[in-house]
Amino acid sequence: MAAAGPVKVYLDLLSQPCRALHIFLNCVRIPHSVHTVALRKGEHRTEDFTKLNPMQKVPVMVDNGFVLTESDAILKYLANKYDVPEHWYPRQPERRARVDEYTAWHHSYTRPHAAKVFILECLLPAQSGSPVDEVHLNRALSQLDDTLDKLESMFLRRQPFLCGDDLSVADLLSVCELMQPMGGGRDVLQDRPKLQMWRSRVQAAVGDAFDKAHAVLYGVRDRRKAKL
Amino acid sequence: MAAAGPVKVYLDLLSQPCRALHIFLNCVRIPHSVHTVALRKGEHRTEDFTKLNPMQKVPVMVDNGFVLTESDAILKYLANKYDVPEHWYPRQPERRARVDEYTAWHHSYTRPHAAKVFILECLLPAQSGSPVDEVHLNRALSQLDDTLDKLESMFLRRQPFLCGDDLSVADLLSVCELMQPMGGGRDVLQDRPKLQMWRSRVQAAVGDAFDKAHAVLYGVRDRRKAKL
Repeated sequence: MAAAGPVKVYLDLLSQPCRALHIFLNCVRIPHSVHTVALRKGEHRTEDFTKLNPMQKVPVMVDNGFVLTESDAILKYLANKYDVPEHWYPRQPERRARVDEYTAWHHSYTRPHAAKVFILECLLPAQSGSPVDEVHLNRALSQLDDTLDKLESMFLRRQPFLCGDDLSVADLLSVCELMQPMGGGRDVLQDRPKLQMWRSRVQAAVGDAFDKAHAVLYGVRDRRKAKL
Repeated sequence: MAAAGPVKVYLDLLSQPCRALHIFLNCVRIPHSVHTVALRKGEHRTEDFTKLNPMQKVPVMVDNGFVLTESDAILKYLANKYDVPEHWYPRQPERRARVDEYTAWHHSYTRPHAAKVFILECLLPAQSGSPVDEVHLNRALSQLDDTLDKLESMFLRRQPFLCGDDLSVADLLSVCELMQPMGGGRDVLQDRPKLQMWRSRVQAAVGDAFDKAHAVLYGVRDRRKAKL
């Protein structure tokens, strides 16, 4: 393997998948530098950033000139390329398949459903100054409820983490999505002891990296609370 | 590695990801048996199938008792576990990351956007007997157009296949989604020579397996045409 220069990542910690990547990099101690791309300032639409990622989305990773987008792919690439503990993305085909199964499912369930609650309850009202659209919010909460049911009854049915007995990149992607509505003051796991226990296990496993990645989101929540 | 019994897959060839898996299995010659789960007869909601996959979705793969869902994960598992040609899912980290990047992107672009056109133009009218909702269809077509632009300008910008110089599982997942509106008589690549050429390359690379997987969809198209 060629000696790798430090990995560069382009992130906004208000973005859920960016936080998952931030936590991962802090846990596995891959030398890296973080470049903030402030979405609310439109920094993802600048000419320079568009050259890097024509999709104008974060996160982006650059490793010795190799540019990669999509958090899911970036996490798996780093786990494949660098010598990180096996549990993050196991090499054994059945165990690896469990992580790939969750991350594929995640794109159509956890990610859109949790994001929608945050968008309706926090982002759109902040941008437009209009009150929360309660009809759409209730519909989004009910979709999210169905996803939370599935997380409990399927992925966490017989195991402490989403894809087995130990923490994997799947847990990071998932927990960061489920934290997002916290920006609007809502803990979507409030009445979900099983998922709360899972979140606590993830937090305990990653240590300080969890709160470091979520500091900006906690700030949004606290400023919103102070205003109300 | 334990001697593997023949792989079992549960499919409905009217489902796009099932066709991708069907083509793959035929190309790589992994011994397998196909079990049809007819969605239009509700066979995915039977007690037996629900035990196999509580999500009540196809495809499902069973390999020596190991049950796996999500087409994306199944394709990658089979490529990891069995001795299939390298190009399907390369082991070199950068090349593998390109496949993971596309498949992650696919869930939020190609898949929902092409599926929506089929649902609005073919499935809903067939189920309800009502005419096509043109307003929603036009919106779906415009979203799909944006996705097709991105496929051309980004993934196929400098290479013959979506993730490099050779065919990968990403091309199968993508082409099967883009074929789906054909069920309603619409070739979404009609005015897209670049994407048409890519589709031809995929068809040429997989041979007979392409039309075998699409025979049911062609049947839907032909019966619909005969009715009009």
